[in-house]
Amino acid sequence: MVIVPAMDFAQARAQFPVFDRFAYLNAGTFGPVARATVEAMEERQRRDLELGRSGPDFFLEVMHLRDRVRERIAALVGAEPAQVALTCSTTDGCNIALGGLDLSSEDEVVTTTAEHFGLLGPLHASGARIVVVDPELDAILAAVTPRTRLLALSQVLWTDGRVLPLAELRERSGLPVLVDGAQAVGAIPVNAAELDFLTVSAQKWLCGPDTVGALVVRDPERLRVAQPSYFAQKSFQPDGEFEPRPGAARFDSQWISPAALAGLLAALDSVPEWSYERAAEMTERCRSALAERFDVVSAPGQGTLVSWRAEGDPTRTVRRLFERAVVVRDIPGRNLIRASCGWWTSEDDIERLLGALAG
Amino acid sequence: MVIVPAMDFAQARAQFPVFDRFAYLNAGTFGPVARATVEAMEERQRRDLELGRSGPDFFLEVMHLRDRVRERIAALVGAEPAQVALTCSTTDGCNIALGGLDLSSEDEVVTTTAEHFGLLGPLHASGARIVVVDPELDAILAAVTPRTRLLALSQVLWTDGRVLPLAELRERSGLPVLVDGAQAVGAIPVNAAELDFLTVSAQKWLCGPDTVGALVVRDPERLRVAQPSYFAQKSFQPDGEFEPRPGAARFDSQWISPAALAGLLAALDSVPEWSYERAAEMTERCRSALAERFDVVSAPGQGTLVSWRAEGDPTRTVRRLFERAVVVRDIPGRNLIRASCGWWTSEDDIERLLGALAG
Repeated sequence: MVIVPAMDFAQARAQFPVFDRFAYLNAGTFGPVARATVEAMEERQRRDLELGRSGPDFFLEVMHLRDRVRERIAALVGAEPAQVALTCSTTDGCNIALGGLDLSSEDEVVTTTAEHFGLLGPLHASGARIVVVDPELDAILAAVTPRTRLLALSQVLWTDGRVLPLAELRERSGLPVLVDGAQAVGAIPVNAAELDFLTVSAQKWLCGPDTVGALVVRDPERLRVAQPSYFAQKSFQPDGEFEPRPGAARFDSQWISPAALAGLLAALDSVPEWSYERAAEMTERCRSALAERFDVVSAPGQGTLVSWRAEGDPTRTVRRLFERAVVVRDIPGRNLIRASCGWWTSEDDIERLLGALAG
Repeated sequence: MVIVPAMDFAQARAQFPVFDRFAYLNAGTFGPVARATVEAMEERQRRDLELGRSGPDFFLEVMHLRDRVRERIAALVGAEPAQVALTCSTTDGCNIALGGLDLSSEDEVVTTTAEHFGLLGPLHASGARIVVVDPELDAILAAVTPRTRLLALSQVLWTDGRVLPLAELRERSGLPVLVDGAQAVGAIPVNAAELDFLTVSAQKWLCGPDTVGALVVRDPERLRVAQPSYFAQKSFQPDGEFEPRPGAARFDSQWISPAALAGLLAALDSVPEWSYERAAEMTERCRSALAERFDVVSAPGQGTLVSWRAEGDPTRTVRRLFERAVVVRDIPGRNLIRASCGWWTSEDDIERLLGALAG
């Protein structure tokens, strides 16, 4: 991330107009958006409106924007730019990785009981046998058989913020690991060098625009391009056979709106250097404050999500909180309510959450 | 399309600021953007900036936007809304359709020598044997064997605007037809009822925002969901097995930025009722004017693209025209230059093209 010198908490938080209205605790769904992010999008849209979406400079600029986003995401997760594909979402990344692995019903993939459909749907569509176990080191390792081709799981569970020991799982199983990074990248330090496939959702903890993300691929040469876009090829034959572009750019899934790319770069510039420390600190404050009155299921020292058991109908509670200008969400089918804490979260946000829950 | 009463040509054209600077003749790559389209995007982005991207109304509004776009695209191509999936692009739609057909190397697909990589790449990735023939009725029908599972081709060829006789091909071959509609939808009347799979690119002839499109699926129940997104399912099991949503919405590939959805609705509202007639008329004017001086390869009465053989290096010619504020493109490897004419094209645009070519 770019280090923004001397930005204190008040300055950093003031970037986000939504905090004027809400105790916004739902970055696990969509992060807050900074004014500069929308301004960058508008500037780019105005350029395209006035000058048109064509011409030699237009395409050079867009390719440059794509490269800059690729470099920034690589730097964020300890990868090389050549290992980063630009996608629309974590779901998109999971489909690309699972499609390219060419799994069959003879193959097994181990996943956990706490995954999002963004991973589970692509797993099912892959045709492999999906083995589902508790999100625990021992249970996952015990589920590995000679037919297991992949471990597919989240770095941070979307249900309660638990962090899974991915590097240890990878090392002890000897298997490649596909990681749903939706609740991790931007929330906690992530090291893609320890993983095989890592998805990035820009619209959550990176506070980016919608419909942008990435797939980090450790070894792009070893994954088939199963869903080629125009960006997949350096050259091609009349029947579509193609020489792939070098590196993970061959997996770039779409033309992404230049406004979204420019907005994401602005969003990445809005991150203070103390982001991870403060996010962890505010998560723990939120967790311990809630634990005084509720059955909190999130352990200390995990990701930046805090979940607790609902007293009464969780959907109704979430709606009641929203009416009191506190934004959280429930986790369907688990009777949980979840608060997302970021580096932007204030003590007042947490007090307002507790006050609204009490009222 | 919504019929805008009493919008004359000057009013319709005045919606697009790019025409103040350029003879913009490249809608086959990206259409011009109307001021109202960008304003609708900005309004939506400002809403998300101020109010956040969460809360019960937010998701209802987005689902409503998705439904409205689905209805409008359905109406545009003579389909039912339940036959329309929202995608990011034509490439996305081709990957969804071809992935779901589960083709193998035993299967054959017939395509033509004039297709875009947006179709050819997904065809190659499908694993089927791809049979490439001239874009002629007889050649296509002659290439059909007992192993042929699909015809995959464009309604309007991106190289020169030729219209292929899809309904006749479908009827005479008895095969399903996957249609790249990128150069057709919005440019000429399209009837999806005669086709099996039709892709829509919103950013070209519909003058919509980037990264929005559709896939029209005649019989959604008969295509496997090969790349599920969250929108694919009505309910799901722990291993990802899911009950699909009704209709083609199960193929919705991504969360699409609400700003892009709002922008596309505004773009569709900017279309005058006389759009197809005027686009055809201006295409013919452009074609016949160019034919007086150049070797035009586009026949009369086809789509809205006019291509002619370059005299000298086509890339250099296109750049020279751009410097004279005339925007066209070249077709790589074919020594062609292509002008795109729309309902917004003026006689002055055509004169400027001819003048710049002469200079």
